Amino acid sequence: MAASPSGPRRSTVHDVARAAGVSRGTVSRVLNGGYVSEQAREAIHRAISEVGYVPNTAARNLVRQRTQAVGFIVHEPHSLFLEDPNIGGIMLGANTTLSQADYQMVCVVVDTARDTDRVARYLSGGFVDGAVIVSARHQDPISDVVERLRLPVAFVGHPPGISGAWVGIDNRGAAEAVVSRLRETGRRRIGMIAAALDRDSGSDRLAGFRAALGDAFDPALVETVDLYAFADGAAGMTRLLERAPDLDGVFAASDAVAAGAMQALRAAGRRVPEDVGVVGFDDSAWATRTSPQLSTVHQPAEGLGSAAAAAVLAQLDGDQSVRTGILLDAPVVWRDSA
Amino acid sequence: MAASPSGPRRSTVHDVARAAGVSRGTVSRVLNGGYVSEQAREAIHRAISEVGYVPNTAARNLVRQRTQAVGFIVHEPHSLFLEDPNIGGIMLGANTTLSQADYQMVCVVVDTARDTDRVARYLSGGFVDGAVIVSARHQDPISDVVERLRLPVAFVGHPPGISGAWVGIDNRGAAEAVVSRLRETGRRRIGMIAAALDRDSGSDRLAGFRAALGDAFDPALVETVDLYAFADGAAGMTRLLERAPDLDGVFAASDAVAAGAMQALRAAGRRVPEDVGVVGFDDSAWATRTSPQLSTVHQPAEGLGSAAAAAVLAQLDGDQSVRTGILLDAPVVWRDSA
Repeated sequence: MAASPSGPRRSTVHDVARAAGVSRGTVSRVLNGGYVSEQAREAIHRAISEVGYVPNTAARNLVRQRTQAVGFIVHEPHSLFLEDPNIGGIMLGANTTLSQADYQMVCVVVDTARDTDRVARYLSGGFVDGAVIVSARHQDPISDVVERLRLPVAFVGHPPGISGAWVGIDNRGAAEAVVSRLRETGRRRIGMIAAALDRDSGSDRLAGFRAALGDAFDPALVETVDLYAFADGAAGMTRLLERAPDLDGVFAASDAVAAGAMQALRAAGRRVPEDVGVVGFDDSAWATRTSPQLSTVHQPAEGLGSAAAAAVLAQLDGDQSVRTGILLDAPVVWRDSA
Repeated sequence: MAASPSGPRRSTVHDVARAAGVSRGTVSRVLNGGYVSEQAREAIHRAISEVGYVPNTAARNLVRQRTQAVGFIVHEPHSLFLEDPNIGGIMLGANTTLSQADYQMVCVVVDTARDTDRVARYLSGGFVDGAVIVSARHQDPISDVVERLRLPVAFVGHPPGISGAWVGIDNRGAAEAVVSRLRETGRRRIGMIAAALDRDSGSDRLAGFRAALGDAFDPALVETVDLYAFADGAAGMTRLLERAPDLDGVFAASDAVAAGAMQALRAAGRRVPEDVGVVGFDDSAWATRTSPQLSTVHQPAEGLGSAAAAAVLAQLDGDQSVRTGILLDAPVVWRDSA
């Protein structure tokens, strides 16, 4: 591929006109289907291919005030983005639904503070018609700009204090179901490795754990870690075992946390599930590749992305009735680890 | 958040003017820093916040023919996108480098044929100034549109037949190093689970395997699978063991393939590394979570993304000297599986 002599500048109607030896008006007439002589038409078509001219959709869309693009905003720290098993599924689900409606999904990553400001500018800059937002937090600059612009959005998850459409699962109910079942199967000293308490998913899972135990709840059996990550699960399990060596059940806030916890349990000479029953959350690739396979909560990642995209599309179609929450089913999947 | 009464339409200068009770010209003067009365200025600032008006950057960028956005195009089938451990790292590396240059990375996923056509339109539509392209194939519509538009791009990997800047690793050399080492450590019947032969990475790894074995190369010891995936590795290993039960070494085309192969070996009663030495490729999260930990080739995922982004930025700065290949170092990491 030869570089254009004028550098990466886009070819314009002006370039086409010059190469064809006609006026810009004549080029415009051809582009818009108007009448020109056969000779001029041929010269213009040759020139279009010669200079690599393509009509600028962005400019035309501006007139319609529609870009036909929807942002997909992932608000995750660097390390977690690589480890979270749900983001890829949510993204593919959103892409499929947007694609069927002939919308382009454009994914932007918010990793550092510098990213936050630039993405807020991007959202406010007219590049997208709406956005699906994953892992938002209340009053971050992104949520602020969305509110200020009245941009049609849908959140995956339900951050407190944020209004607007959202799609999620009943994290609290699923956690309650898991812990109740651990009790029913005879576990008496059940701990939790809680994670990401700054997010609704993390705090709701802890609330469900607490609710299921009722009067039997013992704060000493909760170990809190920062992220839904393998390393955090291993470290958290080690600390929890030191405090409660008689523990016989663990609810881990994610499958990655559970896999880390299982590694720490093995290192401490505990058998899973014989000595300690372990349950995770997500039903991600982790769940079927640990040994024994994980009992967990199935997170409908692609369904969440698809439903959030559909909620944005409905707003773009002028449907005002969708600005509420949608809960998708997240069943408990019982395998071998508890 | 209340929906705008007129639906999701963006507020315009006209809306501000009407709300402030002034002319559009007066609003423009305020926005461009010109003189207006203090009273009008205050009314306009109130109106701006009231109607949620934000200046349209996309429109201004159009005049400059720059969007200050760079596309990140992932060309992967659905299933692999979720499983490939490198894509996230390449994406974050590109995002960091673009972010430092104050460019917005916009990632688009090419999953289905419908996506291909739409992404080609998006690229040609003036929404991005350039693009990083991952997993391209020769003469796919995306590569075609890039060539036709003379869009500044850099490929991650080096698809044959595609010219332009690219960044990659020496897949063939790394594969040769791995297989030579397997021979030096006494393995005599070494097989390979080759994957993704429609890509340069897949075919180069097979070429390296073949070169390292020289006259000892036996085509019956190569099992080919479609994807760099766990399930493909397990199925491929099972078939390879049927054909060559005396096998004592396996080079798997990726860590996920190696992890699947180890599961199949365990199921067949073979010990790793005692009976069969296994080596992977990528040095991804898989490598340290298999038991035993994987010997593998370290893939500098973030470095690849960063270098590809830098190559696009250099072209945007008018630097013509970068349109060549860059090879990053991919050292062999020897752990416990071989």
